[in-house]
Amino acid sequence: MKIAALGEFGLIDLVTKMVDVATLNPLSRQGLIIGIGDDAAAWHGDTSTQLVTTDCLVQGVHFTLETTSWEDLGWKALAVNLSDIAAMGGQPRYALVSLALPADTEVSSAVALYHGMIELAQRHGVAIIGGDTCQAPLVVITITVLGSAVDGLLTRAAAVPGDLIAVTGYLGASAAGLDMLIKQYRFDPRATRQLQESFLRPHPRIDPGQLLVSCGIKAAIDISDGLVADLGHICQESGVSARIVADRIPVHPVVKSCFGERSRELALSGGEDYELLFTGGAPAIDRATSSSSSLITVIGEIVTGKKGEVTLVDHQGNPVELAQTGWEHFVPTDH
Amino acid sequence: MKIAALGEFGLIDLVTKMVDVATLNPLSRQGLIIGIGDDAAAWHGDTSTQLVTTDCLVQGVHFTLETTSWEDLGWKALAVNLSDIAAMGGQPRYALVSLALPADTEVSSAVALYHGMIELAQRHGVAIIGGDTCQAPLVVITITVLGSAVDGLLTRAAAVPGDLIAVTGYLGASAAGLDMLIKQYRFDPRATRQLQESFLRPHPRIDPGQLLVSCGIKAAIDISDGLVADLGHICQESGVSARIVADRIPVHPVVKSCFGERSRELALSGGEDYELLFTGGAPAIDRATSSSSSLITVIGEIVTGKKGEVTLVDHQGNPVELAQTGWEHFVPTDH
Repeated sequence: MKIAALGEFGLIDLVTKMVDVATLNPLSRQGLIIGIGDDAAAWHGDTSTQLVTTDCLVQGVHFTLETTSWEDLGWKALAVNLSDIAAMGGQPRYALVSLALPADTEVSSAVALYHGMIELAQRHGVAIIGGDTCQAPLVVITITVLGSAVDGLLTRAAAVPGDLIAVTGYLGASAAGLDMLIKQYRFDPRATRQLQESFLRPHPRIDPGQLLVSCGIKAAIDISDGLVADLGHICQESGVSARIVADRIPVHPVVKSCFGERSRELALSGGEDYELLFTGGAPAIDRATSSSSSLITVIGEIVTGKKGEVTLVDHQGNPVELAQTGWEHFVPTDH
Repeated sequence: MKIAALGEFGLIDLVTKMVDVATLNPLSRQGLIIGIGDDAAAWHGDTSTQLVTTDCLVQGVHFTLETTSWEDLGWKALAVNLSDIAAMGGQPRYALVSLALPADTEVSSAVALYHGMIELAQRHGVAIIGGDTCQAPLVVITITVLGSAVDGLLTRAAAVPGDLIAVTGYLGASAAGLDMLIKQYRFDPRATRQLQESFLRPHPRIDPGQLLVSCGIKAAIDISDGLVADLGHICQESGVSARIVADRIPVHPVVKSCFGERSRELALSGGEDYELLFTGGAPAIDRATSSSSSLITVIGEIVTGKKGEVTLVDHQGNPVELAQTGWEHFVPTDH
C-alpha cells in the first residue's frame, strides 16, 4: 500500500503505535507527560514542564518562492513552531534551525530568511541556539522549538462533553491570502496587504495560550490544518464529538467582503490561521473572554458521540454539509 | 554571491553571527552554555546540563535508496544525532522525527525506516516522543535529540597547546563501505559485510563519550566530515593548530587489506566513522586509554599556530601533503 492511500493521519497513527510500544517503557516513560499526538511533547522538568515541537516546511508543498519572500519564509517557518508551543500554553525559549538549500541559492536569500526568523524570535525572546545546514535540490526548513510551561498545559486530549468550544481572533484570512496570491486577485490595497500578511506572517498566540491556562482552560490546539480538521484532532484525542454553529464562526471581515459566499468555507477549512481553538466549561470560557484583550468567540460545544466527529449546524440546529474539512498530507486534494 | 561560493562553513559563520547578535541577549543567554558551533547546544538545567542537537539527511545528498535500505536509513538518521550527544559526553533521552516523504512511498518502507530507528533507540534507552510528517518530492529526515550531561561537557573549544590528540576505534571503514557500494566492488563476504555495516549502521559512541568526561577530557568532536576536517573544527573553535602523525592513524585493518594505498586517505578524510576525536593532557589520555575497553590511539598533539590549521607529518616530522580534507556541503567535490 502507498502512503497516499493511508494518508498523513493514518501514517502518524501507525508509527505512533510502533514507537510507543517499542520505545516507551517504564524507564523512558518516567517523567514523560505527552509523547506523539499533541502540538508538542511534554515532560516534567525540575521546576516546570518542558516542551518541544518540530515542524517542517517543504518548497512546492508548504510554500513556493513565487508567492513567499525569503524573509516571510523565515518568519513563517518559526511562527508555525512557536504556535505549537502557544497551543500547549507554554513559553518558547530556544530554537534550532535545520536548513536544506540548493547550492545555487543566493547568500542574500539565506540572510533574508534568517532576518525574518530573527524578527519573530526577538518579539518572543527566543534564542536560536543550533541547527544544521546542508545541500538539497529544494528548500526544506525544519525548526525545533523548546519551551516550558509553569502553571499547566493545554492538551488535545482534555475536552469533555459539555465543554464550550471557542476560538481566538478571526478565521479564513490566511487561506484567502494564499488563494489571492496564487490566483493573483486584486482587492483594494489595504485588504490585499491584510490577507497577504495573514498568510505570510502569522502571529503565534503565545500570550493568549498562557492566558487560557490561567483561566482554567485545559484543551486547545492551534489552527493549522483548518478549523474543522483541528477540532476533529481534539475530538479524536479526547474521545468525544463536537457540534459547531455555522453562523457563529468568526469569519474575518476582509475575507467576507472580498470572497463573499466562499468566505465561510475558507474560515472552516482553509487552515493556517494559527489562532487557538479551545474548549472548557462555561465559567473558564467566561473568564478567558473577559480577561482577553482580543476577540474570543464561542462557536459550539463538545458532545458525546462518535469519537473524532465534528458536525456543523445552522442556527436552528439543522446539519450543514461541509465541502471539505482541511489539509492532510499525501492525500490528493484541490486545497 | 551563491552559497556554493561561500561554502557550508562560510554560511554557518554568517548566520551564526547574525543569530548570536540578534537573539542572544542577557536574558536569553541566561543559563545558556553553548549555542551554535558545537556538536550540540547546551544549557543549565536544575540538576544537569541539558543538550539538544538536530541533523538532517537528504535523499541524493546524504544517501540514495540504491545503496541504503529503509531500515538502515532509519538507524543511520538517528545514529548521526546520537553521535552528536556522545561527542558532548552526554546521555540521549528523547528524539523527535521530522519525516518528509513522496506520496507514492510504500507504507512498508516507512515502517522499515521506523524499525531501524527503533532498534537503535532501544539500545540506548531513547524514547521517540514527537515529530512531523509531510509530503515532499524526495525523502528528507530531520531528527532532533535531547539529552543531558551530569558530570561535565566535551566541547570543541577546549583544546589547548600541549594536549595530545586521540581517537576511539578504527577509521576509514565507513568511507570504504560507501565507495564499495557505489562502485560495486566485491571483497570476501566478511570484509564486504563489515565495510557495508560501518557505512550503513554506525554506532554512536555514547558510553566512550561519558568515559572521556570521567577521565578529565574536555575537548571532543565526532568524526562525521572526516578526521582532518573535524580536527580542524576543534582547532578553529579552540584557536589552536594540530599536528598529526600519518603513521599513527588507526586505519581499519579491513580497509587496509581491501584498499591498499588509498586506505590512509579514506581514514584521514573519508568521514562518517562517528568515532570520537578528542584532546587532553597526557594523564587524562592515559586514564582514558587504561579504562576503555575499546581501542584508543594517540595520533598527534595540539600546538600553537594558525587557528584551525591541521598539519600531517611523517614519523620523522616532515610534512605530508593531504589530497583532500573532508566533506563540506555546497562546495563541488569528488568526495
